[in-house]
This record gives sequence, structure tokens and C-alpha cells, in this order.
Amino acid sequence: MTKQVQELIERAQRTFVIAHVDPDGDTIGSALGLAHALRKMGKNCILACGDPVPEALSFLPGIQEFGTPEITDEDLIIAVDVSDPNRLGTAYERAPCLDRPTVNIDHHVTNSMFGTVNLVRTEAAATAEIIFDLLRDLEVSLDPLLATYLLTGIVTDTQSFSTSSTTPRVLEVSAELMDAGASLTEINENYFKKRGLATLRLWGKVLDQMQLDGDLVWSVNTLDMQNECHADSGNAGGVVNLLATVREAAAAIVFKESEDGQIEISIRSRPGVDISPIAAHFGGGGHPQAAGSVLQGNLDQVIPKVLSKAKQVLNSNR
Amino acid sequence: MTKQVQELIERAQRTFVIAHVDPDGDTIGSALGLAHALRKMGKNCILACGDPVPEALSFLPGIQEFGTPEITDEDLIIAVDVSDPNRLGTAYERAPCLDRPTVNIDHHVTNSMFGTVNLVRTEAAATAEIIFDLLRDLEVSLDPLLATYLLTGIVTDTQSFSTSSTTPRVLEVSAELMDAGASLTEINENYFKKRGLATLRLWGKVLDQMQLDGDLVWSVNTLDMQNECHADSGNAGGVVNLLATVREAAAAIVFKESEDGQIEISIRSRPGVDISPIAAHFGGGGHPQAAGSVLQGNLDQVIPKVLSKAKQVLNSNR
Repeated sequence: MTKQVQELIERAQRTFVIAHVDPDGDTIGSALGLAHALRKMGKNCILACGDPVPEALSFLPGIQEFGTPEITDEDLIIAVDVSDPNRLGTAYERAPCLDRPTVNIDHHVTNSMFGTVNLVRTEAAATAEIIFDLLRDLEVSLDPLLATYLLTGIVTDTQSFSTSSTTPRVLEVSAELMDAGASLTEINENYFKKRGLATLRLWGKVLDQMQLDGDLVWSVNTLDMQNECHADSGNAGGVVNLLATVREAAAAIVFKESEDGQIEISIRSRPGVDISPIAAHFGGGGHPQAAGSVLQGNLDQVIPKVLSKAKQVLNSNR
Repeated sequence: MTKQVQELIERAQRTFVIAHVDPDGDTIGSALGLAHALRKMGKNCILACGDPVPEALSFLPGIQEFGTPEITDEDLIIAVDVSDPNRLGTAYERAPCLDRPTVNIDHHVTNSMFGTVNLVRTEAAATAEIIFDLLRDLEVSLDPLLATYLLTGIVTDTQSFSTSSTTPRVLEVSAELMDAGASLTEINENYFKKRGLATLRLWGKVLDQMQLDGDLVWSVNTLDMQNECHADSGNAGGVVNLLATVREAAAAIVFKESEDGQIEISIRSRPGVDISPIAAHFGGGGHPQAAGSVLQGNLDQVIPKVLSKAKQVLNSNR
């Protein structure tokens, strides 16, 4: 499949690279890295993302390029880290149906193979790892900025090399990216170590409300808690990863109330426990150990429904 | 220096390996790894540690060997990850004065060079990285258990490859240890991802009590909080690392009350900010970005004293 992607890229002159909505470090780092490489090859590249890039990634040069421009006369569309067309956002979900090739580069097991060409490697720890290999095949040399983009994708998607997807090769590739000038310290300091005081206070309240139900630990992040900490709802992302470290639990869920009357659920699990069916059941998606969804309703309605489904899925994992 | 250490080890028949008090993953992993290697070389080895090995390391085969046996007719003493003889504990602080060679293998910048031979490499991310190189010189082959011991030292001392001491070489060595059979997932799951529910609830309370004072964030972990969560005082270690991620702060301190009327302080800082003088001033020690000490008195007495010294040190860092 790489060969086909390579040929499409080599033939293209005007490219359009799309990151997924609710963007994370892997989709943004991969898109920026790929765009940087395409330009080094003398090609035009437009960057698109249906949602704003989170503050935690603002240290990456070039993030202001992401917007929602129209696709016009570009001759190649490339989706990076996008598991399904609906993750392209409303502005782009029809992109794979346009009369030109769409390359789908991704590592999600739930990928729907929507591209005209699909470079999907589910064993890769990050889409950035696939881009690293692709650029080697394309004979694009690494430089400090390109290396920083790709290392950001790897470090963020592996949660600093702590997920079970971290293979020896992931460490070798990362060493190579550091040797090419990427600063692991800069990425860590900017992405993981710059939480606002309000965010951490909110984490404190979420942890204080934890409940253990069988081998499931869960908690809530309510509008009241957010107001008390002067934090906005987007601020508490990540606390579910802490809940997932509870020894007594096989899986963790955080229910987050948002201003628009929706409840966002984030689910995590231990290696070997696949919680993606819970998210999928409620119209969401993700990986076996990390998934999520957005539900209509209030906490009283949503919590029992989700806990009941979660227990059913955890039981079927045994 | 490696050459001298190599010769002493090759000549020795009966060895005595000592880890530091209040043991962490690096001193225990390094000691177990070195002992395993010495035995592969056909030598006797006794393992010692002045304090019990923490529960989080109980997944390592062989930890039950650590105790406080007497040094008798051994012909070589090796201290691993020990910065100063007082870190050997009362049972062994006189060990360097016995009439036989003491090898001091360490990476702390505060190392007092107490050995008859000192293999101290402060640029190493972990003492386990130094042991890795030493074993290569000694031509001891890696095996899955040896690799697990050494990777545990590296992963725990770099907080899963997130400290600024994580060089490309650290990642390469870690990849090699994984290739030799060490499971990064197993180490992460056991060391970082097995916190009790009580511990995380206590973390929640510590986070909820955070205060920002200039560019210093601090909190308390009181006996009352510990009782309310049914957690013991040893349970909240690590929450200071979370405080250190606060964007607004250059340094973080947690004051922990213990049953015996002492206050334990844990201090962390951003790269480039050296907080080790704070700990040193109060009779403790550590690294530039992570240090600690134990003080007599109650919280009302200790907090103002420490905060005042901390501000002075932070100012001199500017």
C-alpha cells in the first residue's frame, strides 16, 4: 500500500491534508510533519481541521495554518489519523466522494477504509510512526522541525511511551527523531506539564468524587465543579487516565457535563480489556484501551445507561 | 574508572550489594540487575537495603532477598544509586571504612565520592544505565530478567521517559532491553498504574488544597486527610509530580504529616530551576529537579520556614 501512496504523492502538485475533529497531538503532529515534507518536495499543501487546535499544541510552529478552507482544485486529499469520514468534520465528510484520490493514513483498529487508497497499520503506536516510514520511502530527509512534529505525535499518542503499543521500534524511531533535533523535553514540558492551576484543582474534585463499582471506577465532572474551580469543561481532559491507574479497577469512566446540555464520556482500560464497544454502542469510537463518546441528556439519565452497558462489556471481556 | 571497577569485580568472589534507604525503582532494579549478573559470572552476592522495598516494586522477582545482613567475609562492597554514606542506612554507613574495597556506582550530582573507587556518571538518566554499560564491558549477556531489572531502573527514574535526562541513548538502551525480553507494559502497569483507590482519593484532596504563592505551588497532606481516605502516609508519594505540571509554577512542594510527628517535604521543579539547595538546607538531598527532606515540628512551624527558603532559592535561580 505504501508504494501506491508514494506514487500518488510523487505525482501530486497540489495537496490537501486533513486532521481529525477534536484534534490531538498525533493528528496535528502528523499533518504538520506531512505538510512540511510535501513542501520540501516542492509541492503545495493546504492544512485543514474541523475544530480549533488545542492550546497544549500551540508550541508547534505552523498550527495557525489549520482552518476550514474549501477543497478546490487540489489533486490529492490526505486524511491523517482519521478513523472514519465523520471524524473529518461536517466541512469535509464528503471529501472521499470527490472525483480525486483520497489517501487514508491511520492506525486506528476501527478505521473504516474510506480512502481510495488506505495506508492503515493498526500495529503502529501513532500515525506519526507511519508518516516517519513513508517519508523515509519518499527519501525526505529529517530536520529539527519535521522531527519535532513526528515526535509530538508519538509522545502524545503513547502518553509518553507508557501505552502497551510502545514497541522497541517506537523507542528507536524516537531516538532517531531526537538525534535529528527534536527536543523531548520541550514536547513534554509543553504538552503534559503545562496544566493550569484551575485544571488541577478540578482534577482534585473529580478524584474526590470517584466511586468503585465492581471493577469499574468512575467519576463526574459537573458544571458546578467547573465553576467552583473557574475552569472550563475542556480543562479536565486527562484525569480519566489517572482514574485508570486505580489498582482495583479494570476500566475507568469520567462523565463530563458541558454547557450545551451534552454529556461527554471518556473511557480507559487496562491492557487486555477492550472498552471500545462501550463507546461504539453510544455512537463514539477510539482504541481498545481509550475511547469516548458524546451523549444527549443529563447526568442522571446518562450515568446508569452507560454503567450498565460498561458492566456488560467488561463481563464479556472475561 | 570503569576499568578499575571491572577489575575489582572480576577479582572478587564474595560480593555485597547495597541499595539506598527509602528505596526507589532505580536502586532496587540496579542492585537486582547487578546481583543477577554477578551470579551469572559465578560469584556470590548478598543484597542489602536499610528499608523495606516498596509494594510498587513487588513484581520484581528476588526482592525478598533484600534485608540487613551483616557484612562479614565479603571481599567487595558495591553501593548502587547511593549519593552519600548516610543513604546506606545506619546498618551500613560505616561500610566504606571497612578494610576492603567499596565501589560507588551512582548518577546523583550530589554524590560525595565515598567509595574506594567511584563510578559516578551524572549525565546518566539512571544508575541502571551505568550498570548496563558496565555489564557490556564485563561481557555479561542480557536475559529477560536482567533486562527487566535494568529497564525498571530507567523507566522509574525518568518517570517513563519524561525527565530532561532522557537522551536518545536512553531510548536506544531501553529498546535493546525490550528486545532482550523486558516488558515495558509490565513495568508501567505494575509501577505506575497500580495505585489504590484510597491513594487517588488522597491525591484529590491534596490537589484541592493547592495554593499558588508567586511561582511556587504547594499543598499539604495531613493526617486528617489520610484518615478520611483510609490511606496511610506513604500512599500519596507522586502527587507532587502532578503539582509540578502547573503552568503558573516554577516549583512545587508537598508537606506530608506523618504519625511520628515529622513533616516530609517533596520538592519538584521545571528543567532549568535547581531546587536541590532547598532540600540540602533542611538536611535532605536529591536531584536539581526532584529533592526532599524530613523536618521536625508541626505543619504551622515547618511551612513558613520552608516557603521562605524556597522563595530565596527560586529568586537566586533567576
